[in-house]
Amino acid sequence: MDKGPESGGLVRLLKWVTGFEFEEKVGKARNIVKSMDSDYGIPRELSDLQKIRSLYEPEIPPCLQGTTVRVEFGDATTTADPADDPTIRRAFPNTYGQPLAHFLRATAKVPDAQIITEHPPIRVGIVFCGRQSPGGHNVIWGLYSALKIHNPENVLLGFLGGSEGLFAQKYLEINDEILSTYKNQGGYDLLGRTKDQIRTTEQVNAALVACNSLKLDSLVIIGGIPLLELYMLLNFELQKRFLTIEMYNILGVTSNTDAAQLAETFAVAKCPTKVVGVPVTLNGDLKNQFVETNVGFDTICKVNSQLISNVCTDALSAEKYYYFIRLMGRKASHVALECTLQSHPNMVILGEEVAASKLTLFDIATQICNAVQARAEQDKYHGVILLPEGLIESIPEVYALLKEIHGLLRQGVPTDKISSQLSPWASALFEFLPPFIRKQLLLYPESDDSAQLSQIETEKLLAYLVEAEINKRQKEGTYKGKKFNAICHFFGYQARGSLPSKFDCDYAYVLGHICYHILAAGLNGYMATVTNLKNPVNKWKCGAAPITAMMTVKRWSPNPGATSIGKPAIHPATVDLRGKAYDLLRQNATSFLMDDIYRNPGPPQFEGPGADAKPISLSVEDQDYMGRIKKLQEYLEQVRTIVKPGCPQEVLKAALSVMGSVTEVLAAMSASSSNNLSSL
Amino acid sequence: MDKGPESGGLVRLLKWVTGFEFEEKVGKARNIVKSMDSDYGIPRELSDLQKIRSLYEPEIPPCLQGTTVRVEFGDATTTADPADDPTIRRAFPNTYGQPLAHFLRATAKVPDAQIITEHPPIRVGIVFCGRQSPGGHNVIWGLYSALKIHNPENVLLGFLGGSEGLFAQKYLEINDEILSTYKNQGGYDLLGRTKDQIRTTEQVNAALVACNSLKLDSLVIIGGIPLLELYMLLNFELQKRFLTIEMYNILGVTSNTDAAQLAETFAVAKCPTKVVGVPVTLNGDLKNQFVETNVGFDTICKVNSQLISNVCTDALSAEKYYYFIRLMGRKASHVALECTLQSHPNMVILGEEVAASKLTLFDIATQICNAVQARAEQDKYHGVILLPEGLIESIPEVYALLKEIHGLLRQGVPTDKISSQLSPWASALFEFLPPFIRKQLLLYPESDDSAQLSQIETEKLLAYLVEAEINKRQKEGTYKGKKFNAICHFFGYQARGSLPSKFDCDYAYVLGHICYHILAAGLNGYMATVTNLKNPVNKWKCGAAPITAMMTVKRWSPNPGATSIGKPAIHPATVDLRGKAYDLLRQNATSFLMDDIYRNPGPPQFEGPGADAKPISLSVEDQDYMGRIKKLQEYLEQVRTIVKPGCPQEVLKAALSVMGSVTEVLAAMSASSSNNLSSL
Repeated sequence: MDKGPESGGLVRLLKWVTGFEFEEKVGKARNIVKSMDSDYGIPRELSDLQKIRSLYEPEIPPCLQGTTVRVEFGDATTTADPADDPTIRRAFPNTYGQPLAHFLRATAKVPDAQIITEHPPIRVGIVFCGRQSPGGHNVIWGLYSALKIHNPENVLLGFLGGSEGLFAQKYLEINDEILSTYKNQGGYDLLGRTKDQIRTTEQVNAALVACNSLKLDSLVIIGGIPLLELYMLLNFELQKRFLTIEMYNILGVTSNTDAAQLAETFAVAKCPTKVVGVPVTLNGDLKNQFVETNVGFDTICKVNSQLISNVCTDALSAEKYYYFIRLMGRKASHVALECTLQSHPNMVILGEEVAASKLTLFDIATQICNAVQARAEQDKYHGVILLPEGLIESIPEVYALLKEIHGLLRQGVPTDKISSQLSPWASALFEFLPPFIRKQLLLYPESDDSAQLSQIETEKLLAYLVEAEINKRQKEGTYKGKKFNAICHFFGYQARGSLPSKFDCDYAYVLGHICYHILAAGLNGYMATVTNLKNPVNKWKCGAAPITAMMTVKRWSPNPGATSIGKPAIHPATVDLRGKAYDLLRQNATSFLMDDIYRNPGPPQFEGPGADAKPISLSVEDQDYMGRIKKLQEYLEQVRTIVKPGCPQEVLKAALSVMGSVTEVLAAMSASSSNNLSSL
Repeated sequence: MDKGPESGGLVRLLKWVTGFEFEEKVGKARNIVKSMDSDYGIPRELSDLQKIRSLYEPEIPPCLQGTTVRVEFGDATTTADPADDPTIRRAFPNTYGQPLAHFLRATAKVPDAQIITEHPPIRVGIVFCGRQSPGGHNVIWGLYSALKIHNPENVLLGFLGGSEGLFAQKYLEINDEILSTYKNQGGYDLLGRTKDQIRTTEQVNAALVACNSLKLDSLVIIGGIPLLELYMLLNFELQKRFLTIEMYNILGVTSNTDAAQLAETFAVAKCPTKVVGVPVTLNGDLKNQFVETNVGFDTICKVNSQLISNVCTDALSAEKYYYFIRLMGRKASHVALECTLQSHPNMVILGEEVAASKLTLFDIATQICNAVQARAEQDKYHGVILLPEGLIESIPEVYALLKEIHGLLRQGVPTDKISSQLSPWASALFEFLPPFIRKQLLLYPESDDSAQLSQIETEKLLAYLVEAEINKRQKEGTYKGKKFNAICHFFGYQARGSLPSKFDCDYAYVLGHICYHILAAGLNGYMATVTNLKNPVNKWKCGAAPITAMMTVKRWSPNPGATSIGKPAIHPATVDLRGKAYDLLRQNATSFLMDDIYRNPGPPQFEGPGADAKPISLSVEDQDYMGRIKKLQEYLEQVRTIVKPGCPQEVLKAALSVMGSVTEVLAAMSASSSNNLSSL
């Protein structure tokens, strides 16, 4: 009887029970529970560059070093627009108004900082929600590393295949082995991302059951794009509010809105799992007082700027083509703005400018034509024009047309009947558009009701309109130049899976660490934040802000006759037309347009010059909101110390006088800024 | 009266005469003659990475160092297929059959090497012909640097705007100032490339006049794509052969064919200008015994592989899309093959495989469907499929259809009448195709008669056919998986203007140096060559080969009934299906298809790991033809030395016996290989 290990019955049985057969074959260990058929977390072949990158150890700021967590709580938070306060408070009774949290270095002398030295073992779940963004893996690594530093018994479960894996309780226990080939690497393929939409009550219950039955102390959501259905259905089940799917569909929400809603829901349901959000989205549109930029944005802009610059060089070499390049970024134009500042193409048309100036499709085409004509007068017949994917929705009449189409689609009108049921005005526009665009407009909208933006070839539409207009001008004799030739590109998915830049690697890793500190402080419904990002890592300030403090309430009427509803959500931040980054663009726009001062940042580098570059739009802004809030608190604290009962009458009088006028000025400014906001 | 320098009449006059006004403004000197309105050669703003790259000094191999040129001539050259010999000899009586040239290090002990120590001042013209390829600028720099090392009086004129600038005698005298911001940079924007086609006799005469009146000792042509019209018209004028434009149009020629023709024409016309070609084309299809790879190919493959890998990561993260990516590369699939070896996508369909196996469009769609189905059975619903742009022409029935369409277009049939005039069979195929492809097939062909390959969206056509077939299988119940979702991409112009890789910088710079050595040796109609490229620069072997030795003669009948013609040309080299690179692909194809062993080489690096990587298809091949030819010569020389008159009878007998059998074996092999070639 053969007793060798290869054929031993017991060994085989063990293998069968534990599922370690494959792992032995590849000489690696995997802890896969309930997902024996999955390929997730498999160590894989890396290129030389990937290998070196996998050995890179991101820096962490001094406040996160060591094994003691020191947290200082700031003031209770409010929201940017005071008018939204009651609505948000009503929707989030348990999680709205929580204080800011600042994580401090062990030696920091802050009298009332909370010091957490005991770290009982905890179980944390982590899930990728929404589209992949370079750097996502490093959040997992950072969290894992912080968990193990504080207590080796801590457990991190990665849900497989996004929220679907959460509901089905399919997960992978993260360990060093598994992480080894995913450190500083792009994609979400360690765990996979959300695959399907979640529509049934069963799935929602499964989510609660999962957190309870897996005894999770915390659930960390790495995300950008909506986990809308989860939000919606949890809401249905637990809060029993009546809202139709259509009503939710009109809200532009991000998965962090859902994290906030989950946190609130868990609190209501007395589920002990704390929910934490992490700002990971390549569109760069999760931006507010607390969040300066998002993980992935830097990489996406670097990879795209490289390609845009290559096309600029191409244009200048051949001197006969206009390139129309559409960039991703959904509704906001952050990516297009940053890439313009990096590459200096001739023109960019931001959705925010179009919306603010209420430009029509023909206005935009005319602007481009005028630019082409002005360049032709200088004997230039080439150029590069950037278009954000959200542009199409920013054009008022196209937006109105899309709304009508989507309304009809939702009523179940078949696509070939849509045209005949549109309002006369919308129908006229629709019929005017070239067939390929008509077809794309008829695609069913995404779950958050944006059009299938990445499917609408705005670049081809504008090239088509510009060519028609130039030909017309040529016939009329107003354009006397050479033939206009357009080449169209969509830079969509080429950048998304890229190796993350050093900045994104560091930022994500630090955010992962912060997640641990949030959990250790027992916080629920917070987002991990790092401010002062434009400075070196050792100057970064780490903290956490209640997600509800980032919410606003939009009120609108989706269809004529329907009741307006307002629901708190984190709305994608658009490009601030009063910000410094946009101002920089405006200052240089004429020179970019006429002088071909193309600049090629080159492919993203990991060593040598350029490796430490950060987004220009981040570097020009003067942010550090969290740092300033903390500074203000220090001033107030000093005032309190100086003006204690027993202080001289003069000191008190001076304090009253100064504080009175400070309060008056701030009240006035605050009211006017909120008016400005709503007039935008 | 104001005598200040700003307003001085003399200064103004001088500025007016010399054209230095603008230069003074920007504080830089430009020597622009006859092109005062041009923007070429302007120093420009560089990014940090571009600046560092502009300071990089490529290495040159030992044989090119120093100021002495040592050249050893090899045997007279022939062509790969002996059957082509008479045709080429007849067409190129002056330049065919010239010997190979090897450039040797100053200390090399070769008795009959020609040593050139005198370097009278020479005037050289250089021109970009065809599409830009990363590294082109370094050829200019290398040549300029070699010219100045050997005689500071040497002059290099760069023609502005490609061949058009040559005819118009518009040029820029190259100097250090001008070169400074173009060293190691992408694009052809220092001089600009060919803008227009050349169709009139006047233009051809202008070319000859230019070389004569500018007293050029040499004209260096940096090129890939046809300078066809020049070739053709010079031919008309000087050799009085009767060939119609259509006849030439059916030939796939490269600008180096034209360089060869120019060289011959100049020789006939007793024009003293020597013509030199340089293998610069990103398609990598100028490949033969003497040329191992082309300047630009490495960079293009690196940039594309980065993007393909990103898309692979994306596919694996989302697990619901099939990406169909079309790559440029014209008729040959070298780029697609190299990118596959670098990135390991699931599938690639090489045009050469399709042509060799005579696959129909439906065969290809079926192959992809089968792959999709096999993956679905393993619960995989994502994948990445590469398609070379030349694929569409490699499909026999589509090729036949294109030929018919082009024939009708040339007869002036309007596009809307084409369909009705096609043969019944072609018409059936045409009408079956989706409208967007029909429209693209009707585009007027490029000058070398390829279809407007970059305009035909093969990726969309195949995605369309695959989706239809999968849906059909689903209805029939043979496919049981989830819905098939395709996303299409064309990676066309994003890579072309890229910063050249270190390899391309070095290779181009060395080729520039070799151009000088070719001129110093007084050679006409040669191409600069470097062999042993897969080894470090100090092992590179530098030489020159007559361009005519790279020619072959294709015989075919473009339209039924027309007379077959055969014209010597350098035909684009296709992927060798018996080569090692293809073999490597075949060995791994199944694993690539099923196991998702995606590999991400990352963005091209200039420092650290990956910076010195070379194309895999170059590294696996066992080439160094020039080195072996030289080794053989050494053996023959040794035999001659040993078997001198007076040697013993036995030695002579042994030599005769061995040489007799060597000759017999080689004759047999040579005959069979030429048969193989023609049967391909």
